[in-house]
Amino acid sequence: MWKRSAGLGLTLLAAAMAVSVQAQDDAPTPEELAQSATETRQAVFKLLAFNMGPIGGMARGQVEFDAELAERNARRIAALAPMIPEVFAARDTRDFDVETEALPLIWDNMGDFQTKAAALEEAALTFAETAAGGDRAQVLGGLRAFGSTCGNCHDTYRVD
Amino acid sequence: MWKRSAGLGLTLLAAAMAVSVQAQDDAPTPEELAQSATETRQAVFKLLAFNMGPIGGMARGQVEFDAELAERNARRIAALAPMIPEVFAARDTRDFDVETEALPLIWDNMGDFQTKAAALEEAALTFAETAAGGDRAQVLGGLRAFGSTCGNCHDTYRVD
Repeated sequence: MWKRSAGLGLTLLAAAMAVSVQAQDDAPTPEELAQSATETRQAVFKLLAFNMGPIGGMARGQVEFDAELAERNARRIAALAPMIPEVFAARDTRDFDVETEALPLIWDNMGDFQTKAAALEEAALTFAETAAGGDRAQVLGGLRAFGSTCGNCHDTYRVD
Repeated sequence: MWKRSAGLGLTLLAAAMAVSVQAQDDAPTPEELAQSATETRQAVFKLLAFNMGPIGGMARGQVEFDAELAERNARRIAALAPMIPEVFAARDTRDFDVETEALPLIWDNMGDFQTKAAALEEAALTFAETAAGGDRAQVLGGLRAFGSTCGNCHDTYRVD
């Protein structure tokens, strides 16, 4: 019934989700799933960078401080942050030939990784709260505090 | 001062943002910027699919309906949706050799594209509101309505 009532939009949408839901007629191979999981992980970090970029530019004095934009992006970062632990827990790609900066150590130490990711998530929420109505110093201090929780994992779990 | 007070975390973070902010010592080439812009676009759609996937699974009866998860993901979709017009407006990659499903027509018809993207953004907000406390039928109806606004652009502006 779902299929019959769905318009073309949903059909396309279903195609886009095929790999994620793993339940299409042509089930993806483990290699395809590992590749897709890797791309999803990278997408999270790409969008974190995309939204941190302008605030970083404000921090370095390269772009004018814009409180509204900083708050908007901090909220987006807080929405993205909880996806980090999810996308790493979703699929262990250690045994696959994927192009990734994620070290196998992540899955060896998933408990520690998740703890660090939870701290980042918390810091992202704090950053979003700080950015709401915060002045330049507060916003940039919030970014710095959040950034240090990013570094906690990059030091250990990311290709140098 | 920013640089001096920043810890390693921020240094790494700055490196990650280098392409986005376009203001590092080694300025990226136009080709690199086009490649990065393409990856950012794809990241938005990848995460939209990642968060729609489970709700699509609920729609097809493949996974049990989970109101809390549906609401959480619908909120994430609403946070991601406004990035669509941004990432396409940010950089015109028509003249670059990038691997993309985005048709050149997008930049030929940016006004129409932005109108359709605004409708999608609006639909995503409505979907998130519907999903908050909605029952199965409401959530899936909300997904369907949102999905049709995705299709509006896929039909015209995406490689078939």
